[in-house]
Amino acid sequence: MSDIIRFGISMDSKLLKRFDELISEQGYSNRSEAFRDLVRDRLVKEEWKDGNVETVGTITIIYDHHKRDLAEKIIDHQHHQHDSIISTMHVHLDIHNCLEVLAVKGKANHIKKIADELISAKGVKHGKLVMTSTGKNL
Amino acid sequence: MSDIIRFGISMDSKLLKRFDELISEQGYSNRSEAFRDLVRDRLVKEEWKDGNVETVGTITIIYDHHKRDLAEKIIDHQHHQHDSIISTMHVHLDIHNCLEVLAVKGKANHIKKIADELISAKGVKHGKLVMTSTGKNL
Amino acid sequence: MSDIIRFGISMDSKLLKRFDELISEQGYSNRSEAFRDLVRDRLVKEEWKDGNVETVGTITIIYDHHKRDLAEKIIDHQHHQHDSIISTMHVHLDIHNCLEVLAVKGKANHIKKIADELISAKGVKHGKLVMTSTGKNL
Amino acid sequence: MSDIIRFGISMDSKLLKRFDELISEQGYSNRSEAFRDLVRDRLVKEEWKDGNVETVGTITIIYDHHKRDLAEKIIDHQHHQHDSIISTMHVHLDIHNCLEVLAVKGKANHIKKIADELISAKGVKHGKLVMTSTGKNL
Repeated sequence: MSDIIRFGISMDSKLLKRFDELISEQGYSNRSEAFRDLVRDRLVKEEWKDGNVETVGTITIIYDHHKRDLAEKIIDHQHHQHDSIISTMHVHLDIHNCLEVLAVKGKANHIKKIADELISAKGVKHGKLVMTSTGKNL
Repeated sequence: MSDIIRFGISMDSKLLKRFDELISEQGYSNRSEAFRDLVRDRLVKEEWKDGNVETVGTITIIYDHHKRDLAEKIIDHQHHQHDSIISTMHVHLDIHNCLEVLAVKGKANHIKKIADELISAKGVKHGKLVMTSTGKNL
Repeated sequence: MSDIIRFGISMDSKLLKRFDELISEQGYSNRSEAFRDLVRDRLVKEEWKDGNVETVGTITIIYDHHKRDLAEKIIDHQHHQHDSIISTMHVHLDIHNCLEVLAVKGKANHIKKIADELISAKGVKHGKLVMTSTGKNL
Repeated sequence: MSDIIRFGISMDSKLLKRFDELISEQGYSNRSEAFRDLVRDRLVKEEWKDGNVETVGTITIIYDHHKRDLAEKIIDHQHHQHDSIISTMHVHLDIHNCLEVLAVKGKANHIKKIADELISAKGVKHGKLVMTSTGKNL
């Protein structure tokens, strides 16, 4: 199990005041939590620089399900990646447009490749990869 | 209904060759589709600059469900936002860590506020907002 | 004058260890300085969200000075903005390509507009705006 | 020498209209130039993924020149990197704060390292690296 350490930071009072105002607007009830979030976000960015670390991402795509064969292609693609794709959420935005989010686990480079392939498919209008983490070392 | 227009672009041949190589690696079978994706991505970015446009986002969070009251807080928070939160996907990453993705619809500024509130909650280790689109004007 | 405050932060020991390793690689000799940089970077981002705050930016452009009239256009453009453009640095990269960096002071929205106009000029191959700060409140 | 190629792109008319409006606001007089800029920006991003490509960057830092030894440290640091640092621009923002921009040439990873070292120095309040290009293949 991991221990909680308490350590001191010195900072200009004006700077700290501005930071406290900002995080309170964002909804933080606690300054330590805001600092931990800054640290965790910085570490997740590092994790993704090394393409071979096991990590987690989510891929969000918007597509028109009327485009010929697109829905099948997307499902087919996902089945070929069944080891990596943990789960999928599908939302009908309107009569044409779908939102689909895939939770993906694997090496950073492999997750990026799956994202590239889905986002480049014809009929996919917009797509973004979120590079997050397994949470294990955070 | 919308028409398809065909128009010409002039480009240095070396530049076009490098672009063709890049998009082929990414999986594009078609140069027009790659250009359309560049255009759509640029327009989605603009949409989010104006906080009052109706749009769609997904919020990805990683959290430890053992943190006292966090799971309830997150569910409670979502119910208060039931007009905006369309759907949720939950993945058990390991004994401690959960991945949750929320599909959210509403004004850009409101979606950002929901994301801020969830990401700043104690116990949420990492969070990211994807700013995407209803797909209607893409 | 501003005072230095010392305050405590609590953090999981594993998380702190990973952060300490990262900042030591980046060259930080001091943990407080790394935290101050995270805070200052966050505050600078906020400053630029409000387009009317007086701030400072630098605009980097790469262009081919053989393109007809481009060099004159760029100089002319800068003279029209002489109130905002503090200084310029010009580097001859090779026989064709120039690097030019402009230091610009003014309202955030005005600096963005100057950047858009320069980057969109024909012959300018690449351009980026750095959103930084007057340093006064950091 | 490189040739100019003209090729066709097909696009939904509504999408093209929105893009034309956006680029006209940004100051583009020409649709081809806007597409070339999208392509060049995409290619520059790729260049920096491979840390060993020779490229060009600019480093912008804001610092307080009253901080003990900082100005000397920064100058000293630059002399040790004289092979990489092409030129420097210094602006006195106010009685305390300086803006300094360095034009740097070299392998992507080496430029990133120089940026890390400068930005992490005590007294440097804010810093950003612009990843641009030699312009040769754009």
